[in-house]
Parts: sequence; structure tokens; C-alpha cells
Amino acid sequence: MAKPPKHKKKRQHYALPHAGSSPGMIYIDEKALKPIINLHQYNAESYKVQELNDLNNLKHILTDKNHTFWVEIKGFKSLAMFEILTKDFGVNKLILEDITRTYQRPKQEEYDTYVFAVSRMLQLDENQNLENQQYSFILTDNALFTFQEHYEDCIDPVRSRLKIGKGNIRTSGSSYLMYVLMDMIIDTYFEILGSWGDQLDNIEDRLFDKPDKTVMFDTQLIKRNLINIRRVAWPERDKLNDILRSDTHLIPDHTKMYIRDAYDHCIQIIDIVESLKEISASNIDMYLSIISNRMNEIMKVLTIISSIFIPLTFIAGIYGMNFASTDPITGKLLPQNMPELYQEHGYLYTMIVMAAIAVLQIIYFWRKGWFK
Amino acid sequence: MAKPPKHKKKRQHYALPHAGSSPGMIYIDEKALKPIINLHQYNAESYKVQELNDLNNLKHILTDKNHTFWVEIKGFKSLAMFEILTKDFGVNKLILEDITRTYQRPKQEEYDTYVFAVSRMLQLDENQNLENQQYSFILTDNALFTFQEHYEDCIDPVRSRLKIGKGNIRTSGSSYLMYVLMDMIIDTYFEILGSWGDQLDNIEDRLFDKPDKTVMFDTQLIKRNLINIRRVAWPERDKLNDILRSDTHLIPDHTKMYIRDAYDHCIQIIDIVESLKEISASNIDMYLSIISNRMNEIMKVLTIISSIFIPLTFIAGIYGMNFASTDPITGKLLPQNMPELYQEHGYLYTMIVMAAIAVLQIIYFWRKGWFK
Amino acid sequence: MAKPPKHKKKRQHYALPHAGSSPGMIYIDEKALKPIINLHQYNAESYKVQELNDLNNLKHILTDKNHTFWVEIKGFKSLAMFEILTKDFGVNKLILEDITRTYQRPKQEEYDTYVFAVSRMLQLDENQNLENQQYSFILTDNALFTFQEHYEDCIDPVRSRLKIGKGNIRTSGSSYLMYVLMDMIIDTYFEILGSWGDQLDNIEDRLFDKPDKTVMFDTQLIKRNLINIRRVAWPERDKLNDILRSDTHLIPDHTKMYIRDAYDHCIQIIDIVESLKEISASNIDMYLSIISNRMNEIMKVLTIISSIFIPLTFIAGIYGMNFASTDPITGKLLPQNMPELYQEHGYLYTMIVMAAIAVLQIIYFWRKGWFK
Amino acid sequence: MAKPPKHKKKRQHYALPHAGSSPGMIYIDEKALKPIINLHQYNAESYKVQELNDLNNLKHILTDKNHTFWVEIKGFKSLAMFEILTKDFGVNKLILEDITRTYQRPKQEEYDTYVFAVSRMLQLDENQNLENQQYSFILTDNALFTFQEHYEDCIDPVRSRLKIGKGNIRTSGSSYLMYVLMDMIIDTYFEILGSWGDQLDNIEDRLFDKPDKTVMFDTQLIKRNLINIRRVAWPERDKLNDILRSDTHLIPDHTKMYIRDAYDHCIQIIDIVESLKEISASNIDMYLSIISNRMNEIMKVLTIISSIFIPLTFIAGIYGMNFASTDPITGKLLPQNMPELYQEHGYLYTMIVMAAIAVLQIIYFWRKGWFK
Amino acid sequence: MAKPPKHKKKRQHYALPHAGSSPGMIYIDEKALKPIINLHQYNAESYKVQELNDLNNLKHILTDKNHTFWVEIKGFKSLAMFEILTKDFGVNKLILEDITRTYQRPKQEEYDTYVFAVSRMLQLDENQNLENQQYSFILTDNALFTFQEHYEDCIDPVRSRLKIGKGNIRTSGSSYLMYVLMDMIIDTYFEILGSWGDQLDNIEDRLFDKPDKTVMFDTQLIKRNLINIRRVAWPERDKLNDILRSDTHLIPDHTKMYIRDAYDHCIQIIDIVESLKEISASNIDMYLSIISNRMNEIMKVLTIISSIFIPLTFIAGIYGMNFASTDPITGKLLPQNMPELYQEHGYLYTMIVMAAIAVLQIIYFWRKGWFK
Repeated sequence: MAKPPKHKKKRQHYALPHAGSSPGMIYIDEKALKPIINLHQYNAESYKVQELNDLNNLKHILTDKNHTFWVEIKGFKSLAMFEILTKDFGVNKLILEDITRTYQRPKQEEYDTYVFAVSRMLQLDENQNLENQQYSFILTDNALFTFQEHYEDCIDPVRSRLKIGKGNIRTSGSSYLMYVLMDMIIDTYFEILGSWGDQLDNIEDRLFDKPDKTVMFDTQLIKRNLINIRRVAWPERDKLNDILRSDTHLIPDHTKMYIRDAYDHCIQIIDIVESLKEISASNIDMYLSIISNRMNEIMKVLTIISSIFIPLTFIAGIYGMNFASTDPITGKLLPQNMPELYQEHGYLYTMIVMAAIAVLQIIYFWRKGWFK
Repeated sequence: MAKPPKHKKKRQHYALPHAGSSPGMIYIDEKALKPIINLHQYNAESYKVQELNDLNNLKHILTDKNHTFWVEIKGFKSLAMFEILTKDFGVNKLILEDITRTYQRPKQEEYDTYVFAVSRMLQLDENQNLENQQYSFILTDNALFTFQEHYEDCIDPVRSRLKIGKGNIRTSGSSYLMYVLMDMIIDTYFEILGSWGDQLDNIEDRLFDKPDKTVMFDTQLIKRNLINIRRVAWPERDKLNDILRSDTHLIPDHTKMYIRDAYDHCIQIIDIVESLKEISASNIDMYLSIISNRMNEIMKVLTIISSIFIPLTFIAGIYGMNFASTDPITGKLLPQNMPELYQEHGYLYTMIVMAAIAVLQIIYFWRKGWFK
Repeated sequence: MAKPPKHKKKRQHYALPHAGSSPGMIYIDEKALKPIINLHQYNAESYKVQELNDLNNLKHILTDKNHTFWVEIKGFKSLAMFEILTKDFGVNKLILEDITRTYQRPKQEEYDTYVFAVSRMLQLDENQNLENQQYSFILTDNALFTFQEHYEDCIDPVRSRLKIGKGNIRTSGSSYLMYVLMDMIIDTYFEILGSWGDQLDNIEDRLFDKPDKTVMFDTQLIKRNLINIRRVAWPERDKLNDILRSDTHLIPDHTKMYIRDAYDHCIQIIDIVESLKEISASNIDMYLSIISNRMNEIMKVLTIISSIFIPLTFIAGIYGMNFASTDPITGKLLPQNMPELYQEHGYLYTMIVMAAIAVLQIIYFWRKGWFK
Repeated sequence: MAKPPKHKKKRQHYALPHAGSSPGMIYIDEKALKPIINLHQYNAESYKVQELNDLNNLKHILTDKNHTFWVEIKGFKSLAMFEILTKDFGVNKLILEDITRTYQRPKQEEYDTYVFAVSRMLQLDENQNLENQQYSFILTDNALFTFQEHYEDCIDPVRSRLKIGKGNIRTSGSSYLMYVLMDMIIDTYFEILGSWGDQLDNIEDRLFDKPDKTVMFDTQLIKRNLINIRRVAWPERDKLNDILRSDTHLIPDHTKMYIRDAYDHCIQIIDIVESLKEISASNIDMYLSIISNRMNEIMKVLTIISSIFIPLTFIAGIYGMNFASTDPITGKLLPQNMPELYQEHGYLYTMIVMAAIAVLQIIYFWRKGWFK
Repeated sequence: MAKPPKHKKKRQHYALPHAGSSPGMIYIDEKALKPIINLHQYNAESYKVQELNDLNNLKHILTDKNHTFWVEIKGFKSLAMFEILTKDFGVNKLILEDITRTYQRPKQEEYDTYVFAVSRMLQLDENQNLENQQYSFILTDNALFTFQEHYEDCIDPVRSRLKIGKGNIRTSGSSYLMYVLMDMIIDTYFEILGSWGDQLDNIEDRLFDKPDKTVMFDTQLIKRNLINIRRVAWPERDKLNDILRSDTHLIPDHTKMYIRDAYDHCIQIIDIVESLKEISASNIDMYLSIISNRMNEIMKVLTIISSIFIPLTFIAGIYGMNFASTDPITGKLLPQNMPELYQEHGYLYTMIVMAAIAVLQIIYFWRKGWFK
């Protein structure tokens, strides 16, 4: 029997806060990437993107109230960068800690001059493993800061829409941009769930056609992933709900109308996750019942063959006994020892008896429905 | 053993929003049908239905406040049609997006001059697969717009009641018509659940009579469908509750009294779904216990037959051994080799011993209750 | 093995509203019974019961404010009767629809001049099937209308208490009578649950004594019934709670004090139902583990007997081989062929070896604890 | 195999209200015990207990506001006694019904001049069965009435503390005494749960050492008892919470501070019950997996032995066939019939082949890990 | 098969309140440790720690409002010490009882001049058993009292941070110190859960590579521990939430901002616990399905070998019968007895028939997919 497929899965890390460190201490991982800072500056008429080396001059740039700014930060390897956020923009140190310790649940927190929010960006890598990256937002009145740990992400479509300027993305301010990014991230969940839904359908087909143990392994793997995505989707829903009910001036009603749409999407995500979980469970039930059925079939074959032939073999064994008709030494006749052996039709009758036993047994098993 | 029945099921699609597209962008699928627009115009005295080519003139027609209008739209392949809704009737683009992306959960949203609502129309096709079509409503003060993707639906009875004019359907305004349609859709759920309830009863009968593996497959299929209908029924209940608690002038108290009735029906639907789910689970439990019982029966047959005949065959084997009473070469007598073979009643005694062993074993198994 | 007992169960109907019919249309089933109308008229001093042919004169009778009236209606086959309720007593048509479509959940609805309520009357028929009849109430200030579909019911004790006049039943008005009837109906639930509790105890005894497959069937049957009674008990609780919190003048505080008692009973019902469900589940778990244990025992018997005798039979088979000590044709001696057969104690030694093997195996199985 | 232990359990009665009897009718069971009435009279300085024959004079005694009184009533066989409670102390008849129908859930009800409360006193009898006795309280401003059905109880420590006068039991009024009794009753739950916790630990040890079917029976018994104690603990919690939130003058804030402590204990009880339930479930899972494992082991033994010896026996059977080398009648040579039998080393080679087959199979099974 | 590993687990005690003792009585266990009292005295500039012999002089020391004090008490064997807390600091006796009876759930209680709180300090000992120690806080305006039963703990990092004075630990008052300690304790939960997460990953690897019964034992052990940690984490969350919503002046908003961070951590803990529980359950499901699969494989081997060789052995048995071709006594020819034995190619044909049967069976099993 083939070995179950080896899933070279990356371990999911339960990133630990460094026990005993000061709260609000910014933690930069050794393997953190060098930050790339892109400054998108746009309004209805114009769009410009430039790469910054650092944030030193940013405060000055952002005084221009005619443009909306998107400060896109990828990679965290610069303590100085974070310190400027505190110094120039008054960002609380606990928030910077949350940005750099990338194991936060989706949440939003409101402060006087800015809103902090966290989304989880989910992507399937080439081995179908679930990558789970933190995407953090700091929203001010005319700017949106976003923070991501790695360079890869799933938000290129937003960048191109911003460049093209279709729809109202350039005219609706920084909170609308935050919405667009959050919605973009949630939309990728649909793709991932769609892929898993297809896999579950495929597994179900295998269940009907030729179920083997990979069914179990594959379903469990999807179930595990569904647990992970649910851990993300529920707090995401809470976050969006918090935004909807918040009364910060930074998120105007116009944006909230769209957030409500994203909230609906998130409910649908949860809905699909729960359905897929039920389908997984139902596949596993199916599989276990199929295994039991197979065991029954195997045992039926064994029992039918054994039950038919063991008694016949016993009869053959009887007439293979060597009870003698004469004592070889004294020559005394022993006529009661196996006289059947010396009947003219002994062999024939024996064969007939054997055949009759076999036929009766087959009828018995047939009646029991074991041949169906 | 027969193959399990192949359910040529249509895959359930988790319709994906097109990731990265602008929010509020109307999406027309390539396979969308050409729209058929029926305008029903009625009041207590008269009823008229006409087919429109487009909605261009509709705004003018609807200024007639002596009639109630039902604008029934089937098929979405006309971007122009949706644009008129925005231009002439001020419908929000996000709503048009929800109408065309037909994967919405039941919901209702209130705006100043109209109410938007979504129902899910469920129907069983000829293969007993569940068709799940979105049916959207836009309610204004004297008109109801309805939108459906396909031409087939389950609301012909409403059309005939409108034509006949029985009851107060023609005199109670557009919100009452919306109620009648929503209630009609919910009523079809009863029919579907009734059909599944009968199938579950039938499966239960098979469990008692001759359980085979189709029991498992069929029950799982119904369970899967129940999961789907539950995904519809719970938000439907929430939607109706939202309507009951809303204070829009577009849905008067008179209509709400009926909506409350539809709400009761929806609760009953949920109630039946949960009961049927429990019955499915109980059928599966039964089936698994029946399989285990069968395995026990099979193993009992094997064990009884093997236990009786294997020892007997061993005894026969003993007396089939060729230990010689004389050395064939030297002619030396070997009187201790199998002297039983040369007893006058050796054969008889052996047969008696064998019968005794068999009888003792049968008594043993009888006492254990294995023959029951 | 005995066939599982056939439960000639009546199918539980999910009575369907007739899809597409007008809301509020009174539906009289073809098989409806001819109505029997009993008018009970009583106050502290007097009690009189008379059978009415129709309700035509009832409005006039009920103007007598010195008596309380109980209009008891059994059987629905009279459209005229229901129409009088609308005409003379102003009862909403939706309510009459609810009365005649007898699949309502327990509920109460308050209107200006009357209260509408539904209870479910549960009874066990002679085959221990659960009969589930709708019992509807319309309460006005000095009268109580009750509606039941069939002639049989469980409320004779109330009728006799009314006749005898013990307690305050005759002096506490129509709302108290409604309470007494509702409480009477709930009390029968206790009897039914008591009967099932006894059956579950009995099943548990069988589990310990001689478990067979009827255990599974019987437990599942009770579980199925418990699902049904729970479907009734939860909305019953909600109904009573609604009455407790309602502020209609038709149900005075004096009656509510008693309703609170009925509410407590209903909570106890739910409590017992949940306990019995857990006990059912636990019985099923037990049964499945007993089946597994039995399988183990069966397999042990098979394995012990096979393991002991198959090797011995093999040895006997060895010495049953016909390798010749002389070539029969050439007469050449073949002294290496089975010399054991020509040893003086060959047979004895063989038997000793066989016995040793058997004893060793028995010791091995003994150590493994297989004989316990 | 040993029979499972017979648990001579007392049936748990779902005490039924006598259907159809008047509400508020005091029901005295035939087997009710003759009442013993102890009147404890105490204040900071003095303590006196006396046995009363009846309650006739009690109202007069209780006018003494310098003492606190505890009227302890054991046994219900006196209708007169209950009637005095109504006549002299204005106790509602529904309450007296609740006291005598001893199947009430824990609850509290406030009235103008008294508070009614119910606790459930749980005790393990000598057979480890759970006795569940109702203990009812009526609290007035300077007296506490308690009612118990049987003479045995678990509150002797309270009686001695009252006699000794340690702590503030004698100085804190009747509501504090009620608290002490309620807390005493809850504390016995800890003891019972502790005993079951020990049993579960013991069962777990048996699971590791030598699991047999008593594991299942014993765990199920504890699980059943846990269901019962949970049925008591949850409403007990609600009752204490109701007392905490009530604003009756009969329970002063000083007492509530202690009630809050009892409430904490009750939460802990629920906590432990839930944990023990999870541990029971986990033990059952363990047990079932152990049974499955054992079945695997049994089957491995059978399969290894059968697989090795059945082919060998077949080979021995081959060479036990009697195909003749000469026709016994015509004397015609038949050299193709079993020439192996007449080879010089035929026997030896056969034995070698057999040994080789056995060794190969052993290697095969070894590789499969079946010997581990 | 190897014995399952013996987990020398310490029994988890459900510490019982001593039933019947006075509420508020301080209980000192016999095995309590002699108290070690460390007084930390610090402000922005200075830090001093000294060991006190008793608390007699403490009230005087704490009048110094320029410093914050941490009174760290390890070990409870001094009734006098507790009595001073009541006498000098007005601590309620019920609180002292809660401190010494170390089975409290996490909770917080506010009083006029102090706040009482309980945390549970969890640590893994060298055998990976979960140690669960109570850590109690009494917070006053310029001092924090902490109480722990044993000398070992996990809060050395806090002590060193206090000594070093990094961050704002020395300047933020006693409530901030309480936060730091609570957060430190919660942070150790992450470490423990991380360790169990690794173990579950490891178990999962074993499931894929070579599953044996230790998988079940180890998973159950972790599951048991998860139940215990969950019993701690949920009330911990409630406690932190209570603190957040409290309006005591002892916990300023500045501290609450940090408490909110700890609350977030606690939510994450619960989140991880629930995920790990689901993973445990999924591992157990996997394991059981693997066992079933293995059983199938074992049975297939047995059935294939038995089915092939049992019929062949029967045929060999046939031709091992001794039906005679001549009557040995009368010499009468019996030509119908087993003439096959005297055919020239009888042996050959028989072998061919046997081979054909074997091949047909192998093809049959191959088609059934049993060799895969």
C-alpha cells in the first residue's frame, strides 16, 4: 500500500511575546527584512509614487492637504523608522509593538488623531500551504500607513487601480483606501476557500470512486486549514463591526457604507468556512463507514471460503486416516475400521456428500444476502 | 456488490467577487440571459401586464399613483438597464452589484426612497439537486422591482392570483406584493423539506429492512442539502426580523402583520431543518451500529465453523500419519507406533470422540448466545 | 437472529401550507371532523354545559357578564363557524388560518380585544407512538374559545374539576381557565417523559444483562421522540414567558402568578428532556462499546483455537506425507526419507511435541489475559 | 469473562405533578414521615433548642424580636402543619405545594414578608448512589423555616456551630443562617465531586494498566451522576445570582457579601463538573481506542499463525496425496505421478522449502512491524 | 508490544473547602511553608529590597508616599501575618480565606481602599506536568501585596526589570506593577502552549510515519492539560475585563491601557487553546482511522492467504483419501474408487488445476484492489 503523501508543511508558529520584556518595547526580529518605503501621493488629477529612504522628512510632506498619501512600508529592519512614527506622529509604543510582533488578531483601536487596525493577509503558496501575514494600518486624516513583514503580497490590483484612477479610489480619501485594501484582503479569502471547496468536491468524488487512506489525510489537512482561517475570519468580522459602530471622524459615513459591504463579505466567508467544515466532517464520516463496509466485505470472503472448505477438508481428512482393515502383524481382520473405503461407490458417495454440503452452505449465505 | 449510485450533482459554486475590481462595479456574466421585462400594472379594478423592451420610459409610467406596479426583470444581460436604475431611480451602485453578483445571503437594506431585499429561491431539479437562485427586490412607494437570473421560477401562483385578483393582493400596495412573493418562496422550502423528510423516512425503512451502503450515501446527500438550506434559512429569518423592526414608511404596519406570519413560517422551516438534521445523524448512527452488528454475525459464523472443524481435522490428521508398525527394511516390529490404527473399534471410537468434541463446542457457543 | 421489531409508526407529517394560496384563507381539510360545540357556562354558584349546533347565537349569549364561558370546539368541518368568529368577534383571518392549519408551534399573540394562543397536546397511543395535536385558544374578557382537531383529548380532569367546582377554578375568570388547560397539557408531558424514562432504565438493564440489537432500535426510537417533544417544549417555554411579560388586561396578575408556576413546570420538562437525551446517547455509547467487546471475545475464541490447532495439523500433515523409504520400482533404499516414521517411539515423541506446543500457546494466551 | 458489576441503583424518579389536580393543592405522599419540629432560638448570648409538637403556638413565640429563630421541619405527614403556615404566616399555597412536591429545581422567590428558596441536598449513600433531597427555606425577618423530607441530612456541622456560637453565626440574623445552610449544602457537592474525581483517576490508572469492560461501565455511571449534579448546579447558580441581585430587605448587604462567596463556590462546582465530564469522555475515547488496538493485536496473532502454517500444511497435503507410481491392477508404471516421493533427498528438500517459506513470511511480517 | 509510557502524574486536587467551617476562617495547611517576606521599595531614582521578619512595622513604612512598595510574601505558615493584614490594613477576612485556600479561579474584587485579585501561575515541571499555583494580589494606592504558596515562581524577569529600572516600571505606581506581574504570568502560558503545540506537531509526524498507541496516550495527556489551562484562561479573561470596566481610583486609565494589552494576550491564549484542542481531536480521529485501516490490511493478508490455500489444501486432502482400488480382503476390484490416482498424468493435471485456482483467485483479489 502506498505511503500517505508527505505534506512538507511549514510549522505554524505561535509567535511568543518575549516573556518579561517591557511592554511597548519594539521588537525587531533578526531575520527582519530591510524596509522598502513607497510613498503614493494622489488626488483626483494626479498620482505619483516614490521610494523613500527613511521617514525623516515625511511629516513635512504630509502637511500638503491637497493630496492623499499612502505610506507603504515593507520590512521592519529599522528601529529608527519606528521611532520617528512615535516622535513625529505621536503613535503609541504599544501599537508599534503590535505591528512588529506579527501575531495579532484582526482588531481596530481608535485614538485621537489616528486609527490603528490589523488585517491578516492569507495566501496559498505553491505547496498549497496557508501563508498568514500580518497587514497593519495606521490611518490619519490625509494619510494611510501600511505595514507588512514580507515583500510579497496580494494587493497589486489595488496599486494598479490607484495608478489608473478608475472609480472613486483617488477622490475618497485615506479611509476609503483603507477600506479598499481590507476588502482586497478579504476577497482573497474567497479564492482560497474556493480552492478548498474544489478539493473537497474532488475528495468526495474519490470517496465514491476509489476511497483510499489519502482521503483521510487530505480532508484532515483542509480541516486544519479551515480552523486557521476561522481563527482569522471571526475577529475580522468583529473588527469591521467595531469600525462600523465607531464614531471617529477619521472614518466618514461614506466609507462606512463600503465597510458594511466588506462586513457582508466577511459574514459570507464565515458562512462558507462553517459549511466546508461540515462537509469535511461529513466526508470523514463517509470514509469511516466505507472502511467498515470494506472490512465487512473482506470478512465475508474469508468466512464464505473458510466455511465451505474447512468442513470438506475435514471429511477428506477422515478418509485419509489409516485405520487398517487387517492387523499387519497378526493379519487379523478389522472389518469395522473404515469399511466405506472398500465400498464400490464409496468415493462417489463421498464426493456427492461434499458437494451437497457446499451447495447448502452457498444457499445459506445467499439467503443471508452475503453475495450482494 | 453494487456500486454506490452516482449522483451527477452540479457543483455548488462559491461565486467569487472578482478580486480587485472596483466596489459598486456592475458585473455582467458572459452567460447572462437577455433580460425579459414584464410590467404588471394593477389596482382593485384593473390588471394589465405588458412586456417592455427597456426601462427608458419607466420613470414616466410610474408617476401614475393610482396603480401599483410590478417591474419583473428576468435575465441580466443589459448594462444599460442597470444604469437607468441608478440614473432614474437613484439606486445605489453597491445594490446593483449585489443584484448581479448572485451569491448574496438573504438580507434587507433600507434607503430613503426604496428598500432593497434579497431572497433565495430554492427548487429541486429533476435529479433532486437543489437549485439556489437569487431573487432580489427593490421596493418603492408604488412599485416593486424584482430581479431573477434565470427564466424559470416558482412564483406562477402569485402571477395568477394577481390576474384573478382574489384576496387583497391588488389593493394592498407594493409592500404587500413583496410579502406575497417572499412568502411564496419560503413556502417552497416546505415542499422541499417535505420531500426530504419522506426520503429520510424511506431510508429509515430500508435501515430496518435491508440496510446497504446506499443508506449512507443517500443520508449524507440529504444532510449536505440540509446544510445548504440552513445556510439560507437563518439569514432569511434575520431578514424578516429586520423588516419587522424597521421603521421605514415603505412597509406599513398592515404589511408587517403578514410579514410576522412569514417570519413564523421561517422559524418553522429552521425547526424542521434542525429536526431533519438530527434524524439524519440518528440514521447514520443506526447504520454504523448495524454494520458493526453484521460484522459480529459474520465473525460468529466463521468462528463457530472454524472452532468446530479445525480440531476435528487435526484429529483426522493424526490418524492420517504414516508411522509404521514395522520397519519396511529390517521388518522390525514397532508396536508403539499408532496402535490405535489396529484396534478393532479404533475408527468407531475416533468418530465418537470427534462427535463429542463437536457437540461440546456447540453447547458452549449456544450458552454464549451465539446462535441467537 | 431475530428481526428488529417493526415499529408501525405513523409518519410525522410536516403539514405544508398550500403554497400560493392567499394568506389568511381558512383551509378545511377534506378529512376534517364535523364540529362538536360545547358551551360551558359557570360562575361560583352554578355550572351548566350545553351542546350548540352552531355559533350563530353565541354573541348574544356572551353579553351575560355574570358568567364565564368556555366555548369548546372539536372538529373543523364548518367554514361558516369560522366566518362567524370573524364577523361577530372580530377575530383576524390569519388566526383562523393558524387554527385550521394544525402545524403551529406554541405561541401567543395579543390583540386589542382578545389573546390568541397555541398549545401542543401530546399523547401516547396504544403503540407508544406520540400523537401531537394542536390545541388553540382565543381568550376574551369573559370567554375562552378552544379548538381541537380530533374528538379525543387529555383534558377530562379539567372538565370534572369545573363540574365539581373545587378550588378557585369557577371564580377566577376565563384567563385562569386558559392557564388550567395549558398546565393540564404540560402535565401530560411529565407522564410521557416518565414512561420514556422507565423505558430507558429498562433498556439500560438489558444493556447490562443481555444486550442485543433491539437496544439500539428502541433507544433510537425514544431519541427520535425526544427530538419531537423538545421541538414542542422550547417554544412552549417562550410562549409562557411571553404571556408573563405581556401587559394585556385580559391576563390579570393573579393568573400570571399561576402561569409562572406553569413556566417552572415547562423548564423542568426541558430539563428532563435534555437529561433523557444524554442518557439515550450514553446508552448508545455503551451499546457500541459492548458490541466492540463482543467482537473481541469472538475473535479471541477464533484466534486461540486456530493458533493452537493449525500448527498441530501442520505437523500431522508432515507425517502424513508419502515420501517412500524404498523406490517401489527399483527397490532402491531411500533411508533419508522420513526416518522418523520408523523409529520405535516416533509416534510417541510426535504426540509429546504436539502437546508441548499446545501447552506453550495456552500459557502465552493466558499471560496475555485472553482467558479472562 | 466476568459479568459487569451490577449497580443496584435506585431509579431516579421524575416526580410527576398529579395531573389534573388543583394548583396550590398541598400533596402529602402516603409514605411521608411524621414531622419532627425543632425550634432553635438564639442570640449572641444564648442558644436553646426545643422540639415542638405542632406549630400552633409558633406565631406567638416569634413575636420575640430579641432572638433569631430556626424552625427546622423534617417530614411532611401533617396537613394541619402546612395549613398553619398559610393561616398564621400568610405563606402562599403554591409555595407549600412546591415544598411538598419535592422535585423542584433550586430557585428563589420573593414575597412581601418572606423569601422562599429551594436547595438540593446531595449525598452519596453507602452504595455510592446519589441521594437527591429537596431542602426548602422560608425566610422571614427574624426566623428561618427549613423543610426536609427525610430525617437524614448533611447539616450537623451547622447545628454544632450554632450551639458553640463560634464566628458570627449567632449574631447575623436569619438570612445569614440561610446562607450558612446553603453554603454547607454546596460544600458537600465538593466532597462528592472529589470522590468521583478520585474514581476517574482510578479508572484512568486501570486504563493504563489493565483495561477491561468495567472501565466503560464505571465511567458511564459517573457520567450519569455528573449529568444529575449538573442539573442541580446550574439552577443553583441562577438562584444565588437572583438573591445577589434582589432588593428585598430580608437579605441585607452584609449577608449578600457571603452569598457572593457561595456563588463563587457554585461556579467552581460547575467548573469541576464540566472538567470531570470532559475527563469521562476522554476516558471513554481512550477505552474505545484500546479495544480497537487489542482487536488489532488479536488479529495479528491469528493472521501470522494462519499465514505461516496454512501454506505449509498445503505442501504437506500435496505429498500426502496417493497418486500411484504403478497401477495396482495392471501394474503399469506411472513415473510422472509424484516422482518427488522417490527422490533420495525428497523429504529433506521439502522440509527446506517449508522452512524457507516460513522464514520469508516472518521477515515480511517483521518488516510490516507486526511483531512490535 | 511495548507498554504505554507511565505518566507519573501528580493528581490534580480539587481542593475542598473544609465543609462546615466558619466562612472567613483563615486556613493554614500543615505543610505550608514558612513565610519569606521581601519588601521592594522604589521610585524613579532608587530601588531597595529588604527581607522582613514580620509585617508588624509595615503600616508605618507604607506611610512614605514618595515610594512605591511591593510586599512579596512567599509561604503561608503564619497566622499572625494574616491577622496583621486585617488589623492594620483592614483586609476582609473572606479575602484572606481566599488567599490561603489556593483553589480560587482568577477573579478581582474591589473594596474601598484596596483591590483584591487572583491569577493562576502555570509552570511545566521537569516531567512536563502542569504546576498550577495561585498568585494573589492586594493593591493599595502606594503598595502591592503579592502572595504565593511556594518559593518557586516564574517572575524573576520582573524582579530584574525592577532592579534595572528600564522602561516605566519604577515610575508608574503599584497598579502598573500589578499589571506587569499579571502580564508576565500570562506570557508564560504562551510558552507552555508553544511547547504543547510542538508536541502535537511531533505527534502528527508520528501519525504519518509510524503511528503506535503512544500517539493516543500522548494526545490525551495534552488534551487533559488543555482542559486545565482553559479552566484558567476563561476566568482570567473575565477578570481582566472586570478590571477594564471597573471605576476604582486605584487603577488609573494609564494602567488600563496596558491591561487592555494583557486582555488581548489572554484572548490569544484562549484562541490558541481552542485551536490546539481541535488539533488534538483531529489527531485522535486520524489515529482511529489509521487503526481501522491497519485492521483492514491485516484482514486482507489473512483473507488472501486463507482463500488461496484452503481450497487447494482441500483438493490435496481429496487425493490423500484412502479409498481402495481393490478390496484388501476379498481382492474385489473397485475401479470407481479414485481412478484419477492411477492416471498417467493425474498428478500433473491436479497440480495444474490447483495453480489455475490460485491464479484465478489472485486475479479476483487484484481486481478488488486488495494488493494496493
